[in-house]
Amino acid sequence: MKRALYPGTFDPITNGHLDILKRALQLFDQIVVTVAVNPKKTPLFSMEERIELIQDVLKHEIGNNRVEVEGFGGLLIDFARKKKACAIIRGLRAVSDFEYELQMALMNRRLADEVITVFLMPHENYSYLNSTIVKEVARLGGDVSDFVPPQVKEALLKKLNASD
Amino acid sequence: MKRALYPGTFDPITNGHLDILKRALQLFDQIVVTVAVNPKKTPLFSMEERIELIQDVLKHEIGNNRVEVEGFGGLLIDFARKKKACAIIRGLRAVSDFEYELQMALMNRRLADEVITVFLMPHENYSYLNSTIVKEVARLGGDVSDFVPPQVKEALLKKLNASD
Amino acid sequence: MKRALYPGTFDPITNGHLDILKRALQLFDQIVVTVAVNPKKTPLFSMEERIELIQDVLKHEIGNNRVEVEGFGGLLIDFARKKKACAIIRGLRAVSDFEYELQMALMNRRLADEVITVFLMPHENYSYLNSTIVKEVARLGGDVSDFVPPQVKEALLKKLNASD
Amino acid sequence: MKRALYPGTFDPITNGHLDILKRALQLFDQIVVTVAVNPKKTPLFSMEERIELIQDVLKHEIGNNRVEVEGFGGLLIDFARKKKACAIIRGLRAVSDFEYELQMALMNRRLADEVITVFLMPHENYSYLNSTIVKEVARLGGDVSDFVPPQVKEALLKKLNASD
Amino acid sequence: MKRALYPGTFDPITNGHLDILKRALQLFDQIVVTVAVNPKKTPLFSMEERIELIQDVLKHEIGNNRVEVEGFGGLLIDFARKKKACAIIRGLRAVSDFEYELQMALMNRRLADEVITVFLMPHENYSYLNSTIVKEVARLGGDVSDFVPPQVKEALLKKLNASD
Amino acid sequence: MKRALYPGTFDPITNGHLDILKRALQLFDQIVVTVAVNPKKTPLFSMEERIELIQDVLKHEIGNNRVEVEGFGGLLIDFARKKKACAIIRGLRAVSDFEYELQMALMNRRLADEVITVFLMPHENYSYLNSTIVKEVARLGGDVSDFVPPQVKEALLKKLNASD
Repeated sequence: MKRALYPGTFDPITNGHLDILKRALQLFDQIVVTVAVNPKKTPLFSMEERIELIQDVLKHEIGNNRVEVEGFGGLLIDFARKKKACAIIRGLRAVSDFEYELQMALMNRRLADEVITVFLMPHENYSYLNSTIVKEVARLGGDVSDFVPPQVKEALLKKLNASD
Repeated sequence: MKRALYPGTFDPITNGHLDILKRALQLFDQIVVTVAVNPKKTPLFSMEERIELIQDVLKHEIGNNRVEVEGFGGLLIDFARKKKACAIIRGLRAVSDFEYELQMALMNRRLADEVITVFLMPHENYSYLNSTIVKEVARLGGDVSDFVPPQVKEALLKKLNASD
Repeated sequence: MKRALYPGTFDPITNGHLDILKRALQLFDQIVVTVAVNPKKTPLFSMEERIELIQDVLKHEIGNNRVEVEGFGGLLIDFARKKKACAIIRGLRAVSDFEYELQMALMNRRLADEVITVFLMPHENYSYLNSTIVKEVARLGGDVSDFVPPQVKEALLKKLNASD
Repeated sequence: MKRALYPGTFDPITNGHLDILKRALQLFDQIVVTVAVNPKKTPLFSMEERIELIQDVLKHEIGNNRVEVEGFGGLLIDFARKKKACAIIRGLRAVSDFEYELQMALMNRRLADEVITVFLMPHENYSYLNSTIVKEVARLGGDVSDFVPPQVKEALLKKLNASD
Repeated sequence: MKRALYPGTFDPITNGHLDILKRALQLFDQIVVTVAVNPKKTPLFSMEERIELIQDVLKHEIGNNRVEVEGFGGLLIDFARKKKACAIIRGLRAVSDFEYELQMALMNRRLADEVITVFLMPHENYSYLNSTIVKEVARLGGDVSDFVPPQVKEALLKKLNASD
Repeated sequence: MKRALYPGTFDPITNGHLDILKRALQLFDQIVVTVAVNPKKTPLFSMEERIELIQDVLKHEIGNNRVEVEGFGGLLIDFARKKKACAIIRGLRAVSDFEYELQMALMNRRLADEVITVFLMPHENYSYLNSTIVKEVARLGGDVSDFVPPQVKEALLKKLNASD
């Protein structure tokens, strides 16, 4: 069985993430969506909320045992070893992604040569999408229905109203 | 069984290609090294020579039925469907690679949504390596032992002497 | 009245070009589609064929006097002055486009400060599209219906069959 | 009448901004300089100070009714619709600009297809100029006379002395 | 005698910095490692600690009078003039470095035409290395022996334990 | 004495090359302008013509023994060793330059670790200038006085008239 990690902050999960995940599931038997603790940034959603949103959106794949969702705060390659994952999935949209991702992939390769970073490209319709821009559009009153699943849209609106 | 294509011109195969291939073999059950006919460029090595060099270098993996080597001149996604491959492997070294590869990946996705382009990054020691620069160094009398397998080095020297 | 040039090789015109043109027509009163003689490349379609295809595709806008189509082989800014155009329209899809375009825009600005290069971005669905990739897909037997207007598809198939 | 927005933080306005604006005025009948509220960054100059500096520098164009200056904090395309602007002007200097700008242009196109993002390139003499680097040079005692109008230089020195 | 500045935050110095420095010493008679005060970022190591670590690592070159280490917080070109340095050394690893560095080099050239920014490229084995990623790996319990000198590794571990 | 190579095709030498050379002369005692044989491209000017133009433009520096001009067709690092050069000078203008140059610098470092590639940035006024664009502008009848020395302008016009 081939298992891969799909790490990210997922604050919140977007249709771009789901596109990558759907494709990763065609390549691997199981994907561990790995929600990163990021001590430098304060996320809009707490770790628990981010995990719950992903679990809700992916409940079908979780029921099938194709997807697991876990939070993690240590060295990613330690988690990959612990989960017996052979690969780390990353989405690549832009040149600026590319350089940072190349740096991380080379560092992770140095730290754990047996774990392979695999880059997938999202559909061009998601090429400009990330969690930051979605939160910004929602905060300014724009409609985000095209960019996130309905549960995430609802959670975004609730969260942003609460913080007004 | 998960099979992937690894397409390229391979004129000739380098240690950078082999690094990508080795990693692809950790992810997939079988890799079809797909040697491209490129009607616009005149390769240094003929299609037959390129295939023979790869077969020689990879004879162990071919013996194990982990690797096949084939030449192909049509639409890559037609070949992927014919070979029942779920993925196309591409190496990514540099930003200039990235943009071209993104374009091809999106076009291939449009033409055949079920075939997934998978990008892997070579070891940093091969980040500056490609077939063109290896041929140029060999042509100018530089030592290419660090960049290609011994059989390829020998074939390069023979070919370049013959063309003097 | 504000007039702009939209220069290119248009070998052949694609849906990406038409997307840029449609947007340029919202900004300017008249667009002169300027088909470039390129002495370094041999186009698939002759200058006359390229102009005729564009005229066919844009016959409605030409009828309205919103679009003109002309071939030109000299210094672009001389043509801009002759046509009393205040702007040159260019599409920008990728970083590699960007650098070349920046160079040309700065050179043209030096040569004729009063002519302004205006960059527009095509819809993301055309981000991977250019004439070269369309010709390649058509040549290899792929379906190009999503990428070019019907007349251009027909002309491509006729041209490619003739050259077999 | 064709009107365009020219949005930015303008903290403070530089000669690079003025170069873009001068060129935009050759293309459009009226430009609305749209000073952005940026809730994430604390600007050196308050919204009022930034607007006053721009009004002072552009008083001639404002007198001619060619330029308006307004502050705005919502979704940019809502403001474009309210002002009946057909275009959003952005300056492009560098690849890193390009990717971010492409993302915003595609998002804005999705949110309001009728508003067109128009990219202009500043003169090469301003290619390395932005408000951040100007503030940094001024803070460290360097001469900024070549980079900003005299009123802005004076305001910068006053502000920086006050904060010592 | 030709003297050059090698400015940076050095929080802490890495093997990538040392690789650049070693090469700079082949070009120049003396290098002034210039440790920057950065008022916007809070470094992990204080200015004194950063200087002491560099002095420890480079004690041989300092003994030979080939290297000096100084802290500085003003305009870099003022410091270059004060130290009679003809050049500023910068390492270039990635496209994102490149654009920022180009901007700074052009600004410094405008401010002091006689001081030349010289770019050197680190060995490919350090292409993914910077102080931030080293601190992150150390913080998460990864081994940083390959990335920094032993004294720096020890100081990192001590500092990170103290902040737990 | 520190000597550096400044390699290039110089077909023909431009003001951008001269700007880099002038700065290189502030860093090194002697510069060997190394005119490359490029077997893949047919230059407009022959090797002899390119060398003569450079010698004419730089006769003062050659008289001072600060500059030598030589043609060369082999491996650049072999030439560097033969000339006892410690460095190879390269100009960097754009991201696309950067990636190619990084590749060559890393390859040359692998082949000859003691020869250091040194990158300098031309003045922003030459950021869009290269020999190809200058030849194109001249061929189309544009004025190239701002881009090349007078002798080169004259040679260009003579050459282009001869080829009509």
